[in-house]
Amino acid sequence: MLAAMQAEKIIGIVGGVGPFAGLDLQQKILQETTAARDQDYLSVISISQPGEIPDRTAYLLTETAVSVNPAIPITRQLLTLERAGAQIAGIPCNSAHAAPIFDAIRSGLQQAGSQLTLLHMIDEVARFLRQHMSGVQRVGVLSTTGTRLARIYPAALEPAGFTVLTPSETVQTELIHPAIYDPEYGIKANGRATAKSRSDLLTGVAALQQAGAQAIILGCTEIPLALTESQIDGIPLVDATRVLARALIREAVVAGS
Amino acid sequence: MLAAMQAEKIIGIVGGVGPFAGLDLQQKILQETTAARDQDYLSVISISQPGEIPDRTAYLLTETAVSVNPAIPITRQLLTLERAGAQIAGIPCNSAHAAPIFDAIRSGLQQAGSQLTLLHMIDEVARFLRQHMSGVQRVGVLSTTGTRLARIYPAALEPAGFTVLTPSETVQTELIHPAIYDPEYGIKANGRATAKSRSDLLTGVAALQQAGAQAIILGCTEIPLALTESQIDGIPLVDATRVLARALIREAVVAGS
Repeated sequence: MLAAMQAEKIIGIVGGVGPFAGLDLQQKILQETTAARDQDYLSVISISQPGEIPDRTAYLLTETAVSVNPAIPITRQLLTLERAGAQIAGIPCNSAHAAPIFDAIRSGLQQAGSQLTLLHMIDEVARFLRQHMSGVQRVGVLSTTGTRLARIYPAALEPAGFTVLTPSETVQTELIHPAIYDPEYGIKANGRATAKSRSDLLTGVAALQQAGAQAIILGCTEIPLALTESQIDGIPLVDATRVLARALIREAVVAGS
Repeated sequence: MLAAMQAEKIIGIVGGVGPFAGLDLQQKILQETTAARDQDYLSVISISQPGEIPDRTAYLLTETAVSVNPAIPITRQLLTLERAGAQIAGIPCNSAHAAPIFDAIRSGLQQAGSQLTLLHMIDEVARFLRQHMSGVQRVGVLSTTGTRLARIYPAALEPAGFTVLTPSETVQTELIHPAIYDPEYGIKANGRATAKSRSDLLTGVAALQQAGAQAIILGCTEIPLALTESQIDGIPLVDATRVLARALIREAVVAGS
């Protein structure tokens, strides 16, 4: 828990990626703050305009000519957040941190002369592992197929000396991705864990554990809605959304005090 | 459930009154929407700057010369929401709907030339009772002491023919208000129900039921965080936050289609 004695820099959230992940991040910012009165909580502005942002995984898988880079509307929303007062921002979507999207956001902000400090959720997870899980070397990652194929976590973790483990392609395609995206039982369609989405994700956890993972990153912001525990069978689950929430609080408070 | 086939007008939320009530409203807007993909959800912009908004109940109880009318920062935040794109707005705080606050917000918006459609949560509750609970005549209200003394619910419901029942002053002062505000066990300080806050609110429910209430309005946006059931002992609980969520969706969708 981090105290927020004086509300300092204003936090901005691109909340529509997806809408429930945006809410979950806001909730975790409140949970990780110590406050006795309304007035003691940090300031957070959230823009959730999901209809404007194309699916990140679809873009990463098909990319190119046919589809619009989600970076374009995300950058526009970040600039709206900045005009509304935000000084620090986070994007609660792992897939949006793939280089083809995130690099375009960074350069879009730069071109617009933005002063916003945009945190990189995956780099924050790497930092968290180094600081808080020093005994861990083999890290499992559960994610969308977009995040997996874009190698977002290996790119951040392997240079820091971690070995990154992912589920087999069958488990990924038949269980993990649909647990998030299936229009019937997927988390995005229901806004919460269904029995099947949770049990399929647990199969992924067991597979990674068997492969030797010492910690498992919930590398899609919908997954913590289904796997809410902090560990399973002694293996810690690292919730990327909570890591981002703590990083945003750190920047909001440190920056101002 | 209301379908949001085409995302239409953008919803704005003054989220810092309190921060958890703002989140609860966002959550209920998502829950009350039917959607299979991220992109099908309505657009919502939320500004939670709780540090800027003085306590509404404290203002209503002491009012006048010494304190700043919460209407001033609330109006400023509504105008920021409008500049960021919001066209319809709601304030998830019952006490903010007391005439000394809400009328000042309305006139502040008018003076600024705002085009924002600001819904009145209490009028929406009255409308909901007329439309969906036609057999109900005696309505109990659980609220903060500010909402109670400002007679916010009687002002909206009595002209429509309802009899409004409230807890005794002792129950109000010793149980209901502290369940919301106590710095140790209150909902605002914990962001969720504690055992004591819930049990004290249940005592209020029982007292209102015994006084003859046929329905009970959860007339403070923190109360639904503790009383999540839709009825207790056959008495329906009317969650003002959920009523506001549905009204915002109605305006967002009807307005655009």
